[in-house]
Amino acid sequence: MKSDILNIAVIGYGYWGPNLARNFFAAGANVAYVVDKDEKRLASAKRAYPMVEVTSDIDNALRDTNVDAVAIALPVSFHYQIARMALLADKHVLVEKPMTESRQSAEELIELALRKNKVIMCDHTFLYTGAVKKIHTLISENALGQLQYFDSIRINLGLFQNDVNVIWDLAPHDISILYYISGEQPVSVSAAGLSHTKNSIENIAYLSIFYQSNFIAHINVSWVSPVKIRRTMIGGKSKTIIYDDVEPTEKVKIYDSGYTVSNDEKNMFMVDYRVGDIYIPKLDTTEALKNMAQSFCDAVTKSIKPESDYSLALKVVTLLESAEKSLKNNGKEYKL
Amino acid sequence: MKSDILNIAVIGYGYWGPNLARNFFAAGANVAYVVDKDEKRLASAKRAYPMVEVTSDIDNALRDTNVDAVAIALPVSFHYQIARMALLADKHVLVEKPMTESRQSAEELIELALRKNKVIMCDHTFLYTGAVKKIHTLISENALGQLQYFDSIRINLGLFQNDVNVIWDLAPHDISILYYISGEQPVSVSAAGLSHTKNSIENIAYLSIFYQSNFIAHINVSWVSPVKIRRTMIGGKSKTIIYDDVEPTEKVKIYDSGYTVSNDEKNMFMVDYRVGDIYIPKLDTTEALKNMAQSFCDAVTKSIKPESDYSLALKVVTLLESAEKSLKNNGKEYKL
Amino acid sequence: MKSDILNIAVIGYGYWGPNLARNFFAAGANVAYVVDKDEKRLASAKRAYPMVEVTSDIDNALRDTNVDAVAIALPVSFHYQIARMALLADKHVLVEKPMTESRQSAEELIELALRKNKVIMCDHTFLYTGAVKKIHTLISENALGQLQYFDSIRINLGLFQNDVNVIWDLAPHDISILYYISGEQPVSVSAAGLSHTKNSIENIAYLSIFYQSNFIAHINVSWVSPVKIRRTMIGGKSKTIIYDDVEPTEKVKIYDSGYTVSNDEKNMFMVDYRVGDIYIPKLDTTEALKNMAQSFCDAVTKSIKPESDYSLALKVVTLLESAEKSLKNNGKEYKL
Amino acid sequence: MKSDILNIAVIGYGYWGPNLARNFFAAGANVAYVVDKDEKRLASAKRAYPMVEVTSDIDNALRDTNVDAVAIALPVSFHYQIARMALLADKHVLVEKPMTESRQSAEELIELALRKNKVIMCDHTFLYTGAVKKIHTLISENALGQLQYFDSIRINLGLFQNDVNVIWDLAPHDISILYYISGEQPVSVSAAGLSHTKNSIENIAYLSIFYQSNFIAHINVSWVSPVKIRRTMIGGKSKTIIYDDVEPTEKVKIYDSGYTVSNDEKNMFMVDYRVGDIYIPKLDTTEALKNMAQSFCDAVTKSIKPESDYSLALKVVTLLESAEKSLKNNGKEYKL
Repeated sequence: MKSDILNIAVIGYGYWGPNLARNFFAAGANVAYVVDKDEKRLASAKRAYPMVEVTSDIDNALRDTNVDAVAIALPVSFHYQIARMALLADKHVLVEKPMTESRQSAEELIELALRKNKVIMCDHTFLYTGAVKKIHTLISENALGQLQYFDSIRINLGLFQNDVNVIWDLAPHDISILYYISGEQPVSVSAAGLSHTKNSIENIAYLSIFYQSNFIAHINVSWVSPVKIRRTMIGGKSKTIIYDDVEPTEKVKIYDSGYTVSNDEKNMFMVDYRVGDIYIPKLDTTEALKNMAQSFCDAVTKSIKPESDYSLALKVVTLLESAEKSLKNNGKEYKL
Repeated sequence: MKSDILNIAVIGYGYWGPNLARNFFAAGANVAYVVDKDEKRLASAKRAYPMVEVTSDIDNALRDTNVDAVAIALPVSFHYQIARMALLADKHVLVEKPMTESRQSAEELIELALRKNKVIMCDHTFLYTGAVKKIHTLISENALGQLQYFDSIRINLGLFQNDVNVIWDLAPHDISILYYISGEQPVSVSAAGLSHTKNSIENIAYLSIFYQSNFIAHINVSWVSPVKIRRTMIGGKSKTIIYDDVEPTEKVKIYDSGYTVSNDEKNMFMVDYRVGDIYIPKLDTTEALKNMAQSFCDAVTKSIKPESDYSLALKVVTLLESAEKSLKNNGKEYKL
Repeated sequence: MKSDILNIAVIGYGYWGPNLARNFFAAGANVAYVVDKDEKRLASAKRAYPMVEVTSDIDNALRDTNVDAVAIALPVSFHYQIARMALLADKHVLVEKPMTESRQSAEELIELALRKNKVIMCDHTFLYTGAVKKIHTLISENALGQLQYFDSIRINLGLFQNDVNVIWDLAPHDISILYYISGEQPVSVSAAGLSHTKNSIENIAYLSIFYQSNFIAHINVSWVSPVKIRRTMIGGKSKTIIYDDVEPTEKVKIYDSGYTVSNDEKNMFMVDYRVGDIYIPKLDTTEALKNMAQSFCDAVTKSIKPESDYSLALKVVTLLESAEKSLKNNGKEYKL
Repeated sequence: MKSDILNIAVIGYGYWGPNLARNFFAAGANVAYVVDKDEKRLASAKRAYPMVEVTSDIDNALRDTNVDAVAIALPVSFHYQIARMALLADKHVLVEKPMTESRQSAEELIELALRKNKVIMCDHTFLYTGAVKKIHTLISENALGQLQYFDSIRINLGLFQNDVNVIWDLAPHDISILYYISGEQPVSVSAAGLSHTKNSIENIAYLSIFYQSNFIAHINVSWVSPVKIRRTMIGGKSKTIIYDDVEPTEKVKIYDSGYTVSNDEKNMFMVDYRVGDIYIPKLDTTEALKNMAQSFCDAVTKSIKPESDYSLALKVVTLLESAEKSLKNNGKEYKL
C-alpha cells in the first residue's frame, strides 16, 4: 500500500457494484476506480462519487500502482479471467460469489494468490449478517446440541441468470452459511432440478448433502416462485433455529422444543415430545456488506483471516460442481 | 347389503378410528362393530355409541353377515393381513393410507378384491378437502397453464411411527394429491433422508420425482420440526397456487405472477417478470373425512368410482417403495 | 353437599352448555341435570351422557336437594332471574359472563348469595387460560415495570346477539383480563360505537378507560370484521407483552424493547429507543374451561376464592354499564 | 415561472427533506436551493447534488426570483411562519403534513395563497400510494357497497416529537386517507390519550369520528409499540378492505365476506354470515412521493387540482384540533 488507506478498483457497476463502492467508502477504504463497459453506469458512478476515476478499460485500473485491490462484481463467467489479470497485476482480489465456475479455476486463482502473496477473498455476504453471526455464535457455544439437520429454502421470482443455473446463483448463500456454522465436512451430494427455458439453464433445484455423522443438509432454490421465501432451519439435539431472512426484525428464533427417544422396560421404542420456550435474540443490524468490506480491508492491511476466506469459497465451488453433476444425473450421489 | 344402509366394522379405535366412526355415521352409514385389542378404547367407543358392538376379536365382525364393509385404522404393517382377511370374508374394504407396505401386497389385495367383486379403497383423506378439490378443479380447467412444478413441505414435531419411516407416514398425503391433480405419470424418483434414532427409521426425508415433460415434483417431510408447516406450491406457466394447510381460512392462494421468456433481436435470452393479482377462493368447508366416508359408501352402494380409488392407492405405494430404495442409496434414481 | 362430589345442574344447553358439562365431568364433578327448553338439545345431552337427567323444567333441578349448584349458560337477559331462583333454592351459582345486565342486579345477586352463604361466580374463562395466567404471573413479578397501557382488539365476523350489544358480548373478556392483571381501579370510561342493524344494537364499539396513574386501557370490539383478531398489547416501562390469542402456539411474546426519556445538558427533551430480545414462553395448555370448572368446585367445596370471583364480575358489569352510557353520548366521560 | 421547469427551494434537510429533493428531481423539477440551519446537512445536500445552492439563510432562496416554489420540511411549529414568508415572497408552497398547528393559521395561509394566486398544498403522501389510490378507485366504483366503518391502527416504536403529540404526528395520515376515500363530512370527534413523559405530550391516542350516516371512523396511534402496525380496515355493506401497509407486497385485500340481516316470519332478528372469496389486487409501485411531487408541479404549472389539495389539508387540521380538545377532556364529543 502506498497510502494509509486502501485504494480499490470496483470492476462492474451493475446491480452489486454500487453497493460495494458505497460500503468500501463506509468501511474507510477509497474507491479509486470504477470500471464498466456501460457509459451510463460510469456516468452514474461519477455523479455519486465525483472524485472517482471512471473507465471502461480495466487496464487503466490495473496499471495504476496506487490501486491496491480490485473488487469484481461481474457475471460469474468473468470471475476467473478478471481475477487472474488482477492477481498478475499484483492486486488483492475480492470477487463476488461464487468465486469461479469450476473447482479447477478456483484452485488456480488461490494458488496464484498465494504465490503472489495477495489476498483473494470471495464475497459471501451472508456470513457478515447479524443473523448468521448470531447463529454461528450459538452453535459455537453448543447451544443447539449436536447438529442434526440444515434445511434451507431460497426461492423468489426473478433474476434469471444467463451464464449459470439457479444452483450456482442462489445456493452459494446457503452452502457458505452451512460451511461456516458446521465444522463437519460433507461427504457427498445428490441434486435434482429442471429448466423451463430453451437455454436449458435450470431454474429450480434441490440439493441433499450427506455427512459422515448423523447430519444432513438440504437446499431448495428457485427463480420461479411468486413469493419470496428465505428460511433456514437448523436442528440440533436440544434446540432448533429457524432463520427467516424475509422477516424485517424477528429473523432468528430459537426453539427449545424437541423429542427424547428412550426404550421402556419392554424394550419398546418410545418418543417423548417437548414443547418449550422460544427466544428471539436481538441482532446486530450493521449492514452486512459494510462488515464484509471491512473484513477484506483487514485481510489486506492487517492480515486478519476473514470469515469468508478462500478455502471456504473453494469448498463452495467444489460442492456446486458436484451438485451440478448430480443434477444432470437425476440425483446420483457424487462424492466430494 | 342386507339392509338399506351400509353396516361397517371399524377395525382399530386409536387415533383415527373414532374419526372414521363419527364420519361414517355422519355420512348415513351404520357402524355395527368397533374392533380393538385395547379394552379402554372399546369402552370409550361404547360410551360414545351405546348401540355399537365392541369386541377385541375381529372374527366376530367378519363372521357377521350383516357387516358389509370394514374400515381399517391400524398401523401400516397390519393393513395387508387384515384387509385380506376381510376380503376373504366377503367384505368391502376401506384402509388407511398408505394401502400397504409394498407394491406387491397392494397388487395382491386389489386382485383379490376384483376377484371377489368387492370395493377396496384407501383413505387418502386430503383428496376430499375443500382445498384440494378446488385445486383439482382449477387445474382441470387449465387455470394455471401447463404445470411446471409441485413443491411440498410437510413437517412438524411428532408422531414418530414404529413400523414405517417418515416417507411412508407423511408423503402419501402429498403423493396422492400429486397424482390426483396431475394427469401425468412420473418416470422416476430420487430420495434422501436420515434417521436420528437407534431404530434407523428415517425421520427426515426429501423426494424428487421426475416426469417425461417439463414438470418436477419435490416433497420435504419431517417429524422433527419445532414448527408445523404444510405448504404446497403448484406452479404453472401462467399462474401458481400456494396451498397452506396450516392457515385457518385462506388456504389456497392463486398468484397471477410469472415470467415470460423471449429472445430479443440480438438473439439474447430475455426474461420479463410479471407481478399480478392474487385471488383467494372460498373453499368448501365440509369435513373431508365425511366426504371420504360418503365416497366409500357410494362406491359400495352405487358403484361410483371414488376420487381415491385403488389404482391411485397402488401408484402411491409403488412410488413410496421406489423412494425408499433411493433413500437407502443416497439419491440414486429409481424408475417407476 | 350430600355426596362427596359436587352435583351440578347445567341450565342452557346451546353453544356453551355442552362445554360446561364436559368440563365439569373433567374436573371431577357430576352433572346431574341438563335443563333446556329445546327437546333436540336435551336429546343430544342424553346421547352424550346417558346417566344425566334432562328436563325442560328448571324447577325439577332446583327442587332436587341433591343438586348442589347450577351453571347458567343462557342469554344475558336471563342471568339475573335464573341465578336469583337458584340462590333462593339454596344452590351455588356459576353464571356465564357478563354476570347480569346491570350493576344493580349484580349487586342484588351478590348480596343474596352472601346472605344465603352460597358461592356466586361468573365464568370469565380467559382468566383460566395458560396465556392470561402467564401474563398475570409476569406482571405480579413486575417483569414489565410500571404498566403504561393496555390495548386490545377483539373482532371477527359473527354471533350477533339479540339482547346485548357488542360491548356486553365481547368486552367482558378484555375487561376481566384488565382487572385481573392490573391492581389499579379505573376512574372513568369513554366509549363510542355504532349499530348497522335496525334493532339499534351496536355491533362496533371502542372503549377508553382512564386511571389515576399514568395508565390507560383501550378496547376495540366488533362483530363485523371479515378476519378474526384477538390481540392485546400490555405495555410496561421496561417490557411489553403482545398476546395474540389467534396464534395456535406462540400466543404470548415479551418484547424487551422500549425507550428512555432524558434531559440533556441543554435541558432538551431526549428519547433513546431500545430494541432488545423477544421471549416466547411455553404456556400451560390445559383447557381453560376445565380450570374454571375446577375453580368453581374448589370455591364450593374448599372455600378457595376463585380468580374470577364475584367482586371482579361486579366490576366488569359496572364498567360495561358506564361504557354503554358513554357510547350513547358519543364518548362523554362517565365516572366509575 | 421564468424557466420551463419548476425551480424549488427545499426548506429543511433533516429526515424528509432529502426525500423531497430526490423526488422533485425524479418528477422533472429542479431543486435550486436547499436551506437548513445545520452545516452538516447542507454539506450532505451539496455532495448529493453539486449544482444545488445550499444556504442557512432562507431569505437567499426567497429573494431569488428564479425560485418558483418552496417545499417546507420543518417541524410543524415552523410551518405557518415559513409558509407565510414564502407566500408573501410570491412563492408557491408545499408544506409537510399537518399543514399547520391550528385551524386558524391554516385558514390564514390558504386565504393568503388565494389572494396571491399561489398554490398551497400539503404533502399528504399516502394519498399518492398505489394502495390508497386503489382503495379510492374501488370505493368510487362502489365496490364495497355503502361504507360502514373505517378502523385504523398506526403504531410503532419511535420518533417522539417535541412540538406536537402523537395525534398531530401520525393521525394526519389516517385522517387524510379517510377524507380522500369517503365523500361524507364528519360531524364530531371524541378522543382519548395519555402522555408517559414529563413534557406531557401524548404518545398514545385513540380517536372516534362520528358521521351523520351509519358510518364511524376510529384511529389508534402510538409511539410506544414494540412492533410496527399499519393496518386499516374499511368495511362496506358488501365487501371489506384490509389495508396492511407493513406487508411488502400484499397490502390491499378485499374480502367478499359479510352478513345479511333479515326478519323471519316470527319477526325475529336474523343474521346470516357469508364467507366469500378474497382478492388481492396488484398495486402501482411508483414511489408515492414522486407522484406527490408530480402532483405539486402539475398544480403549479398546469393548474391541475391535486388529490391532496388545501381544502383537504384544512379539514385534517380542523379535525386534529378538535380531537386534541376532546383528548384533554377525556373523550368529550367536539363538533366539527
